[in-house]
Amino acid sequence: MRAEIIAVGTELLTPYFQDTNSLFLSEGLNDLGILVSFKTLVGDEEEDLAEAIKTALRRSSLILAMGGLGPTEDDRTREVFARVLGRRLVFRKDVFAGIRDRFRRRGRSMPVANRKQAYIIEDAEIMDNPHGTAPGLWLDHGRSRIALLPGPPGELRPMFEAHLRPRLAPLGRGRVVRRTIRLTGIGESLLESRMRDIIRSLPPGIGLTTLAIPGDLALHLTAREGDGLDDTDRRLDRVRDRIVRRFGPLVYSTGGESLEETVGRLLGETGRTVSCAESCSGGLLSHRLTNVPGISKWFLESVIAYTNAAKTRRLKVPAILIRRHGAVSGPVAKAMAQGVRRASRSDLGLAITGIAGPGGGSVRKPVGLVYTALSHAKGTVVWKDLFYGGRQQVKFQSSQRALDLLRSYLTKKRKRG
Amino acid sequence: MRAEIIAVGTELLTPYFQDTNSLFLSEGLNDLGILVSFKTLVGDEEEDLAEAIKTALRRSSLILAMGGLGPTEDDRTREVFARVLGRRLVFRKDVFAGIRDRFRRRGRSMPVANRKQAYIIEDAEIMDNPHGTAPGLWLDHGRSRIALLPGPPGELRPMFEAHLRPRLAPLGRGRVVRRTIRLTGIGESLLESRMRDIIRSLPPGIGLTTLAIPGDLALHLTAREGDGLDDTDRRLDRVRDRIVRRFGPLVYSTGGESLEETVGRLLGETGRTVSCAESCSGGLLSHRLTNVPGISKWFLESVIAYTNAAKTRRLKVPAILIRRHGAVSGPVAKAMAQGVRRASRSDLGLAITGIAGPGGGSVRKPVGLVYTALSHAKGTVVWKDLFYGGRQQVKFQSSQRALDLLRSYLTKKRKRG
Repeated sequence: MRAEIIAVGTELLTPYFQDTNSLFLSEGLNDLGILVSFKTLVGDEEEDLAEAIKTALRRSSLILAMGGLGPTEDDRTREVFARVLGRRLVFRKDVFAGIRDRFRRRGRSMPVANRKQAYIIEDAEIMDNPHGTAPGLWLDHGRSRIALLPGPPGELRPMFEAHLRPRLAPLGRGRVVRRTIRLTGIGESLLESRMRDIIRSLPPGIGLTTLAIPGDLALHLTAREGDGLDDTDRRLDRVRDRIVRRFGPLVYSTGGESLEETVGRLLGETGRTVSCAESCSGGLLSHRLTNVPGISKWFLESVIAYTNAAKTRRLKVPAILIRRHGAVSGPVAKAMAQGVRRASRSDLGLAITGIAGPGGGSVRKPVGLVYTALSHAKGTVVWKDLFYGGRQQVKFQSSQRALDLLRSYLTKKRKRG
Repeated sequence: MRAEIIAVGTELLTPYFQDTNSLFLSEGLNDLGILVSFKTLVGDEEEDLAEAIKTALRRSSLILAMGGLGPTEDDRTREVFARVLGRRLVFRKDVFAGIRDRFRRRGRSMPVANRKQAYIIEDAEIMDNPHGTAPGLWLDHGRSRIALLPGPPGELRPMFEAHLRPRLAPLGRGRVVRRTIRLTGIGESLLESRMRDIIRSLPPGIGLTTLAIPGDLALHLTAREGDGLDDTDRRLDRVRDRIVRRFGPLVYSTGGESLEETVGRLLGETGRTVSCAESCSGGLLSHRLTNVPGISKWFLESVIAYTNAAKTRRLKVPAILIRRHGAVSGPVAKAMAQGVRRASRSDLGLAITGIAGPGGGSVRKPVGLVYTALSHAKGTVVWKDLFYGGRQQVKFQSSQRALDLLRSYLTKKRKRG
């Protein structure tokens, strides 16, 4: 069985809009053992939409179309599906009453345009939409099963869970099982060359894909349950464990956790508090840490010391260190980490100083040069990197390195008890 | 002429990967007056890929396919196109030498697998790839023009500019002209209801789309040059100016600039320096400001004061204010802005304190309650908001409000000279 997602909307063909609904739907389908074979993005233009629907009917037996169920003239998904399928649109009093009541409950009268949302494709089943005015539709047509879903994620997602998942469950061939390994501190090509033997000897039915940005890597292992494998989970675990053993300290999570979530959890497990001193990362390190709910128990404060004056006044970095070594140097990173730790009385101090670019670089200190430091009760670790990429990539990789220094330290602490 | 983009790669059908190349290609095509009618995402599986290619040949006269030109077994775009088009693959010695030299220059020998990248579809023109091993291909086939492009953005983008743009230019029907209006401080539905008359009276040929996230809105006006309009630019300007007049102070840019870029530019134009004091936004405000290249001349420092101790020690917020009004209150926001301004000796102090959630809320002070303050030489402005959404949405909207307070102040300063 081939499954196809059709996303309808002229905005999806412009340079501005990403289709994110299909990622959610793919995950839901995969869970049920249904793989997606095609995604088609098409505009509101009637002939194009009709062409996309005909193509999908020819090649796919499950079609999930989303968008174009609204009240405006551009919303034509219902009409064009009806035309291509050779079915009538029928006015449903009960649906109409539901839409009108929805407006009433909010103290508004129903605009005339919304009346068209009460026209339903003949013989379709209605999927209730408690979060909007457009009902979803489900229909069998020859060998095809078709679902029409509203475009807004806040309407589509609950509708999928409540109405589509139960209808799709019998169609799947065993759920798709996943393992995710997330790493930092290694590039994509080096990683792949170091695991060539593992890739070559992957058991049949297990797929491996890599998602990489500078400073962060995710390996996704997938297999379908019952796809010629008697024990999918065990086989996936075996491959995952082999990869984790090989890359050991570079692996920061195997459950999908982000690096900041891992660090947040480790701070809690070890009972350590942390404060940060940032220069070139400009607040990104603190922003990422504070994205973790509950971090306020472990994260105390940060100083973004962009100027040298702020480094000496706020962080007590000796002015002579800056004069002698420059603001971007190992000794200054070390002094920043120690300074913020002392001032805030946190257990740990984490510091970043570097050159994010595009200006400010020199031959001796090029753009991308970054020093990171972690100060703890018994000493300070300093790290030096030369990152590639633009301003934002350098900022991200700096924050990634700092978080990873913290992660390594806390992991060792936890192991020792 | 219908144009279609085909993105090839099984990863694009998983829940993890977004296709971002097609946004870049859409923009490039629009510039040349070519609108995209379909985007198809398809995996590496031969029969699916063949089906997608046949469909595109039937309905579209310009086909840009990307991905699947690499050296691995999963890279089949070349082979499947050749098969569907009924053309041979021919080994090209010159291409082979180029690939081998590329490896040599990096001191590596060419893996055997890369040899297949030297096989070229019969009669195709080669588009050089200075950033990778996969050459691009351009071919005329009956009424269709076809381009095969490598998937990595760093290879695809320069190839588009150098080789595809000149080939496509003669095919366009007049470039697509755009105007962008960016706003903050109003919701999408309120905005749309307040401009219903403008939407209804849009001149024919002018399209309007809205892109909205909580706290930020972009309106895109588009028209095709020569599309029944004698003076596209003037007509677009007229609509844009009407919208700008109506929403006045809510509009922060009309050239596509982000809010932080606007603020960065205004700081430079007015010669003002700024420092920040953040609580619930956790560094996001500083991170966004420091994303702007050259900001180090105007942005001095920030304090992320998550704890009350940090607020009193680092920002000199009187402890009695926190006891009396709570850390999330107007008086504390005001004291934070004044405190950071004094300590850093900046012209302006910008502060945020609030409850980002999910925990920490109460009946009197719910999650989403945020106070923002801007301190300047002659006083302090304080703003209160109740934002909806999760932790990250509250953080973003807080930073958006703070940046906008700064923007309003600087805009007035600039006007007065």
